[in-house]
Amino acid sequence: MDKRIESIQNPKVKEWKKLQTKKGRMQYRQFFIEGEHLIEEAIKHQSRVDVLLAVENTDVPVKWLEQITQMYWVTPVVMKYLSQIETSQGIAAICSMPVYDLELKNGCSYLLVDRVQDPGNFGTLIRTAEAIGVQAVLYTKGTVDVYNDKVVRATQGAIFHFPILEVDGLVCVHSCQEKGIPVYGSALQNAVHYQEVAPSNEFMLIVGNEGGGIDQHLLNQTTQNIYLPILGQSESLNVAVAAGILLYYLKSNKLKA
Amino acid sequence: MDKRIESIQNPKVKEWKKLQTKKGRMQYRQFFIEGEHLIEEAIKHQSRVDVLLAVENTDVPVKWLEQITQMYWVTPVVMKYLSQIETSQGIAAICSMPVYDLELKNGCSYLLVDRVQDPGNFGTLIRTAEAIGVQAVLYTKGTVDVYNDKVVRATQGAIFHFPILEVDGLVCVHSCQEKGIPVYGSALQNAVHYQEVAPSNEFMLIVGNEGGGIDQHLLNQTTQNIYLPILGQSESLNVAVAAGILLYYLKSNKLKA
Repeated sequence: MDKRIESIQNPKVKEWKKLQTKKGRMQYRQFFIEGEHLIEEAIKHQSRVDVLLAVENTDVPVKWLEQITQMYWVTPVVMKYLSQIETSQGIAAICSMPVYDLELKNGCSYLLVDRVQDPGNFGTLIRTAEAIGVQAVLYTKGTVDVYNDKVVRATQGAIFHFPILEVDGLVCVHSCQEKGIPVYGSALQNAVHYQEVAPSNEFMLIVGNEGGGIDQHLLNQTTQNIYLPILGQSESLNVAVAAGILLYYLKSNKLKA
Repeated sequence: MDKRIESIQNPKVKEWKKLQTKKGRMQYRQFFIEGEHLIEEAIKHQSRVDVLLAVENTDVPVKWLEQITQMYWVTPVVMKYLSQIETSQGIAAICSMPVYDLELKNGCSYLLVDRVQDPGNFGTLIRTAEAIGVQAVLYTKGTVDVYNDKVVRATQGAIFHFPILEVDGLVCVHSCQEKGIPVYGSALQNAVHYQEVAPSNEFMLIVGNEGGGIDQHLLNQTTQNIYLPILGQSESLNVAVAAGILLYYLKSNKLKA
C-alpha cells in the first residue's frame, strides 16, 4: 500500500502541486491539507482523504492507516515543494471535494457570506458558524475560494463537519422568505440595534465584504438589517467577530446557562 | 520641509528598515505604518507621526501637511524596500511609541491578553476591545509584539485610540481584586457558562494563547472562569471571536436597544 516518491518531477507530485491554485483544485475536484489536526478531522468526519503523504520517519497514527487507501512516503524535498506553510509537520493529505445539496429547512439556521475576501476571515467565519450549530454556510460568487489553504487552516477542521456551498444570494433570500425564515443582514446603516430582533431557532444571517459590506441588492431584500453598536472610536468590527457576536446572540435561546 | 530620497543606501532609509524587527523598533522607540487609513488615524488621534514618506506624485492630503513636521518624497524603489505589504499605496509614516501609565480604576473594563501569538488575532483583539469601549488592553510577556506590522494593520487604527500596555498578569489580577473589580478568565475547563456571570460596568476579561489558553497561575487567581458553549463539533472558537462575544455580553448593560 505504501510507496515512495523521491523527485519533484514525479507526475503525481506535479499533479498535487496544481492543487495550490483554484484552477487546479477545480480541475481535479481535490484540495491539499497539512498537519495532524486537519488530517485527523478529515478522516474522522468525512473519510474524504484520497491520499496520505508523509516524510520518511514521520510518526503516522496507526488508526489512520486502517482508513486510508493510498499512502506515499516522500522525501523532505518533495514535502517542502508541496507545502504552503513555513514549518511543515511532515504530513499532508489530498482530499476530495464533497458535493452538497441545499434544501433550506424550517427550524434551521444559516450563515450567508457575501464576497468576503480575506482567507483568514472566511475560515474563521466557517469555524464560528459550525461551533454555534448553524446547519450550513452559504457564500456568494466573489468570496475567496473555500479550498484555499489559508481558509482551510483557519477553519481548524470545521470545513469537514457541515455543508459549505456557493449559492445565488438573492435566490437563497427569497427561498427563506417563502418558508417564513427571517433573514438578517449585518449593516452599519439603515439597520436596527441587533437586540431589537428576537433570538430564534430559525434564521439566515448575512455578513458581507470587509470593505463594502453586503451587496445592496441583497440588503434590500432582507427581513431586517441589524447593527452592532460601537462604543469606541472604531468604525466597525472584523467580519468574523461581528458574525460571532450576532450568531451567539441569535442562538441564545439554545445556549441557556 | 519636504526632501527627496532616491537610494536605499541613504542612512535614514537604513534606520527605517530596522523598524521591521522588534529589536529595531525598541532601539528607536518607533514603528512603521503604511496606507492612508492608518496614517489618517495616527494623525487624527495622537499626532504621533514623526515622519511622512510618499512616493513622488502620490496625492497627499493637504490637511496632513499642516500637522506633519518632517516629510520625504521617495522613489518607488525606496518605498518597495521599506514596505511590508504586497501592493503598497505609496504612502507610509514613522510613528513614535507612546508611553502609558496604568492605573486600574473602578467603573472601567479591561481586556488582558495572555501570550497570544498570531499577529492577526492580537490586532483583531485590540480592534474589538476598542470598539466595545474597553479602557485599555493589557498583555503579558510572550504576546506577539504590538508594533509588529501585521498587528498594527489588523487593529485598523484602534492602536492609536487607547492605551495598550505590557503588564505582569498576576500583579494586574491582584490589583483588580483589591479594588473589587471582578476578573473573568475565558477557559474550556473548570469554568461556568458565560451567562452565569452578570453583565457589569467593571471587569477584567482574560483571554489566552491560541493553543494552550491562559497560564494556569493566572486562571487560579481569577474571580470566575467562564466558557462559551459549543453546539457543533468544533473544539473551540478563534480567540478574537470568543473575546468579542464575551465582551459584547459583559457590556450588554451599556448596549441596550
